[in-house]
Amino acid sequence: MMKFFYAPNTCSLASHIALEEAGAEYEAIRIDFTKADQKKPDYLAINPKARVPALVTEQGVLTETPALLVYVAQRYPASKLAPIEDPFALAEVQAFNSYLCSTVHVAHAHRMRGYRWADDEAAFESMRRKAPQAVAECFSLIERDMLREPFVMGDTLTVCDFYLFTLAQWLEADGVDIESLPKVKDHRRRISERPSVKKVVAAELN
Amino acid sequence: MMKFFYAPNTCSLASHIALEEAGAEYEAIRIDFTKADQKKPDYLAINPKARVPALVTEQGVLTETPALLVYVAQRYPASKLAPIEDPFALAEVQAFNSYLCSTVHVAHAHRMRGYRWADDEAAFESMRRKAPQAVAECFSLIERDMLREPFVMGDTLTVCDFYLFTLAQWLEADGVDIESLPKVKDHRRRISERPSVKKVVAAELN
Repeated sequence: MMKFFYAPNTCSLASHIALEEAGAEYEAIRIDFTKADQKKPDYLAINPKARVPALVTEQGVLTETPALLVYVAQRYPASKLAPIEDPFALAEVQAFNSYLCSTVHVAHAHRMRGYRWADDEAAFESMRRKAPQAVAECFSLIERDMLREPFVMGDTLTVCDFYLFTLAQWLEADGVDIESLPKVKDHRRRISERPSVKKVVAAELN
Repeated sequence: MMKFFYAPNTCSLASHIALEEAGAEYEAIRIDFTKADQKKPDYLAINPKARVPALVTEQGVLTETPALLVYVAQRYPASKLAPIEDPFALAEVQAFNSYLCSTVHVAHAHRMRGYRWADDEAAFESMRRKAPQAVAECFSLIERDMLREPFVMGDTLTVCDFYLFTLAQWLEADGVDIESLPKVKDHRRRISERPSVKKVVAAELN
């Protein structure tokens, strides 16, 4: 059985939901960031990047949210969580996921993890001040140009919906006014009502 | 015919090489960042993110390097540039590309584009100072744990090789000692000698 390593309140939630929606058999294992579990030798042997998510499969370890999302969709084709056979449609899914990991998540990370990119408190504070604006600009673009409704890709649920839902969880803490993002807000509410999402969110916060 | 929008000395080089290696028919169109072409209405109509690369296909516009790389590989299956049919192998390709876009490229971007994440010169300077270390840490991980040789994925050339080659172009300017990365250095040299790579590099810098 696959082992899925996650931490609460991180982007691993997206892959966790995908596993649940796909009906995968997996054991979910929590990594406690408050105890720096991700930097301990046992976990570094699984993921030397000291990050979550990590998925231990029969063939080896996989990391990185966009990779896990498509992997789960492809491994469980009955779930139809990504249009694997259609190059253009798959590329649209991938472009969305890539924007989330390389731009949206990064903008958010500057609120709390400035030490990745600078060494002094004044710079951290500067990044913290800018984060609400940077995250808001990303989500404004998503609201205006990307989210097609009812799902990210239009009529069909895909892994993109779980990823957007995950990052949208952080909007209030990031200081972004969710009321300025009515489509994102409505999407977040609708996804939150899915049984798989309720189950996974409850399990992660338990 | 597809239109491929790129800018010299950016990550669009990776997709440009992939198109060339795949034997795609495409028109390459240069976006001049020194004239802020990427922020002009004509280009924003193509890519509202004001970034490169963008690929205008018969079905619509695609963006984001990891998405374009897999799209090109899947659209031109004879090129065998990604293991599309093998979920685990594809996920390994995707995990590598995702690490490059969300961590390595981001570490690099702090040297010149601090304005994305802060508003004051002192913070930009702090990010510039840290960039060599942050980029070096990423490439040390690639050197030690990811690059299998002779190609990123081992015996088979994939789109990962073009992406790594592209980001490795920036090491000297980022202040990273390439001599501390013998595998990355050798990989960069070998990829640079491919006819497709020579052709694309010459075209971009012409």
